[in-house]
Amino acid sequence: MIPKIVVDDKINEIKKPWSPIVIARVNDQVIRLAMFKGTYPFHKHDNEDELFYVLRGSIIIQIEKSHQKLVLNQGEMAVIPKGKKHSPTSEEESYVLMFEPAALKSSGD
Amino acid sequence: MIPKIVVDDKINEIKKPWSPIVIARVNDQVIRLAMFKGTYPFHKHDNEDELFYVLRGSIIIQIEKSHQKLVLNQGEMAVIPKGKKHSPTSEEESYVLMFEPAALKSSGD
Repeated sequence: MIPKIVVDDKINEIKKPWSPIVIARVNDQVIRLAMFKGTYPFHKHDNEDELFYVLRGSIIIQIEKSHQKLVLNQGEMAVIPKGKKHSPTSEEESYVLMFEPAALKSSGD
Repeated sequence: MIPKIVVDDKINEIKKPWSPIVIARVNDQVIRLAMFKGTYPFHKHDNEDELFYVLRGSIIIQIEKSHQKLVLNQGEMAVIPKGKKHSPTSEEESYVLMFEPAALKSSGD
């Protein structure tokens, strides 16, 4: 039997921020779900784009160099291209889906 | 500037069923959005898993051989493994995100 994934149930499993859980695997990609609250430091992924899709709440992704502040509200998504340093912030508890390669690695400053 | 994608705006662009539009590219994958209404015939993807995520409405994916009828309501997702023949149905207009390789190919009976 092919299982279904109830995203709200997965949201309820998450108790702390910045600790993504894998909710699905598709080909060599994973769907991660995380609570964002506060600010996560600048980092980049050298070889992989990263998609953020806000399910609940509202986040701001700061982009280094361009100084862009990308505001993503519920129902909005954006792709951070590989190599771009970014730092996400959320004042409230926000819940965000991330689509990215299973082998994703981060590097900081 | 990194653009943001407002999923509701994309939903409003869609006027006919079974005609996915690409709303984002991330690595070698695409995020497609489609309206499902009626029944799409059985088909399979030989080399790629396919993820369905229901944003609005409710769909049933029939799986060949197992005769499973996978009901996905709003906020629910499932991954159809490569090679599995499946046929999605929606009585009403449903809107579904699909996450799959950019090179996805289908084959029918």
